Amino acid sequence: MNSEANNPVTDEEVFTGHEGGKLSIGVARSIQTQRDLSIAYTPGVAKVSRSIATDPALAERYTWAHRLVAVVSDGTAVLGLGDVGPSAALPVMEGKAALFRSFAGLNSIPLVLNTTDVDEIVETLVRLRPSFGAVNLEDIAAPRCFELEERVIEALDCPVMHDDQHGTAIVVLAALRGALAVEDRKLPSLRVVISGAGSAGVACARILQAAGVGDVTVLDSRGIIHAGRAGLNPIKEQIANETNASGLRGGLSDALAGADVFIGLSGSTITEDELASMGSDAIVFALSNPDPEIHPDVAARYAKVVATGRSDFPNQINNVLAFPGVFRGALDAGATKITDGMKLAAADAIFDVAAENLGVNHIVPSPLDARVAPAVSAAVEKAARADGVA
Amino acid sequence: MNSEANNPVTDEEVFTGHEGGKLSIGVARSIQTQRDLSIAYTPGVAKVSRSIATDPALAERYTWAHRLVAVVSDGTAVLGLGDVGPSAALPVMEGKAALFRSFAGLNSIPLVLNTTDVDEIVETLVRLRPSFGAVNLEDIAAPRCFELEERVIEALDCPVMHDDQHGTAIVVLAALRGALAVEDRKLPSLRVVISGAGSAGVACARILQAAGVGDVTVLDSRGIIHAGRAGLNPIKEQIANETNASGLRGGLSDALAGADVFIGLSGSTITEDELASMGSDAIVFALSNPDPEIHPDVAARYAKVVATGRSDFPNQINNVLAFPGVFRGALDAGATKITDGMKLAAADAIFDVAAENLGVNHIVPSPLDARVAPAVSAAVEKAARADGVA
Repeated sequence: MNSEANNPVTDEEVFTGHEGGKLSIGVARSIQTQRDLSIAYTPGVAKVSRSIATDPALAERYTWAHRLVAVVSDGTAVLGLGDVGPSAALPVMEGKAALFRSFAGLNSIPLVLNTTDVDEIVETLVRLRPSFGAVNLEDIAAPRCFELEERVIEALDCPVMHDDQHGTAIVVLAALRGALAVEDRKLPSLRVVISGAGSAGVACARILQAAGVGDVTVLDSRGIIHAGRAGLNPIKEQIANETNASGLRGGLSDALAGADVFIGLSGSTITEDELASMGSDAIVFALSNPDPEIHPDVAARYAKVVATGRSDFPNQINNVLAFPGVFRGALDAGATKITDGMKLAAADAIFDVAAENLGVNHIVPSPLDARVAPAVSAAVEKAARADGVA
Repeated sequence: MNSEANNPVTDEEVFTGHEGGKLSIGVARSIQTQRDLSIAYTPGVAKVSRSIATDPALAERYTWAHRLVAVVSDGTAVLGLGDVGPSAALPVMEGKAALFRSFAGLNSIPLVLNTTDVDEIVETLVRLRPSFGAVNLEDIAAPRCFELEERVIEALDCPVMHDDQHGTAIVVLAALRGALAVEDRKLPSLRVVISGAGSAGVACARILQAAGVGDVTVLDSRGIIHAGRAGLNPIKEQIANETNASGLRGGLSDALAGADVFIGLSGSTITEDELASMGSDAIVFALSNPDPEIHPDVAARYAKVVATGRSDFPNQINNVLAFPGVFRGALDAGATKITDGMKLAAADAIFDVAAENLGVNHIVPSPLDARVAPAVSAAVEKAARADGVA
């Protein structure tokens, strides 16, 4: 498929690529002369501080904070690894910050936290508020991530997004639009099955419904989530009420019979029989990483469109298509929050880039497509203004 | 004296120099190909996270945290401006981070806090501990800064230093060594008067005594601090007990009569009569900024050696001579704290650089002298090992 298929990345390459960390702080203007020093530091800087003290709005112009994303994690749900703690999460957060720089020209700093308490995390970010301009929550375990995101949004007057939820949901929606365009079908007629009721599964269910998908069913490890099921936590209770209009019960086989779309976000598996039971022109997004719910070559025997999270197969569904542009657009707009409208606009923008050369193996742009982040950013900025948050 | 004297820095130059902030996040290795992405982010990064989860010591090698200084302020004592708050303090913290990069090749991030509560600041840094490798406390008002620094040192297993205290104290000691070398005098015989019992005054009194100065007297706005004076706060009570062995009472005139050294750190003034009353070969450090306690040209009529904090006169006493090398040395050593021995070693190292071409107008190196930070760093690293904290 690409260079990696024939020449896999070695452990040595990976570890060398992380040696000493992946970020560095640079200065916007070099400090080499006494004059530079007098401007950047004392006595010159006192004038800038005094101006901001008099007119706080000037902080936007004369500090880096308003264009800085804090990438915040407690390390409880790191990739497929689970609760590895904040230090082990840091390489991921540094990677995220590197992507913010590389794809959207944004500054960002990783903040990994020695606490998993929602109150304490909210309180910490409130105290640090003057230091940054936006918060990307990352790799925080469900269901705590839902309450945490809601609480941080409430507490801060700046863009906040839990990327595992909404970054994934945005790209899934964009990819679904791409798949439907290939098949010449529309969202409202679809029956979608989502396996996984963690951060990504819940957010996908919600964005798909907001975009107009008619029938969404979500499963967790105990089967289909339906109203009245015993032992649901509050977020799953909400999902039970918001989805599964036809009141399906049972397991994955029950959900998939006749379904149009399967979205795997659970790390579980799906059988060939289950695939075969889906409707014609089935769409399969097997997104678990590094091992998809079913091998894409097998899935392709039954489904018309197949996508995974892997870079060595076509149709890679990768958050990097969304989050750099979403935060860049929100910050460029001076938005106080990230609305559903901004997320939908981001998905549309990603789809629009893919639509320029759509195909069964090209329902989303490559994660490296340099057109994506600017398109997403512009769409998000516009949506922020339309939604009255900028 | 230099380019600034004939061509002063304009407001426009200053504000332009701060436009958009002074820092940027860069990536250690560029991310341009799918392979780069697979190494820096998913799936490669999972291997690095898993390794750190298994062996936490690997975080030192594979994240940026252990070489990252958090520059932390609540904005309560910013330069000469006072309590301007965290947003207005941010340009100073960015400047500090820019100097860490420029002088010691260190990464650092400004964290400005929306709280002035000691418990809350300590708690916030404890929660963020896995994110950084050292803490530079900055521009925090006295006397709270003393308790805060002590509490943060206690709470964290990494180098912590309140630079307004110890950075200043280190450079003052270095400069005093320089002045004494010019005059061929020794520390133990000196009577030193320090005007100002804020962060810098207290730390100077302590380091000078630790270095062997025999007689130190400290004044606050109400006069000489002496044992038994009513209404002393706890830190001034300590100063009263530690200093002023001869039990002086009264004001600045009383303290200065016959004194060898005046160190101004209070933003107050000193008269010609007071200067004239000092001993022969007087040493005057008029360090208030931007207006020294007395104009250096006037002081030079009475004193043998004069230093200020200003860049447009000789003998500039500037913290930048100390903090970059102190933190670099502490981090290079893997030190768990910054000891008195490390601070004294830093002062000696600064003096040693000046000593190469000592003179009445060259008792300290220029703040831009590129030899200083490496010399300080090496001395601090060695002292950390000698003191058993690395």
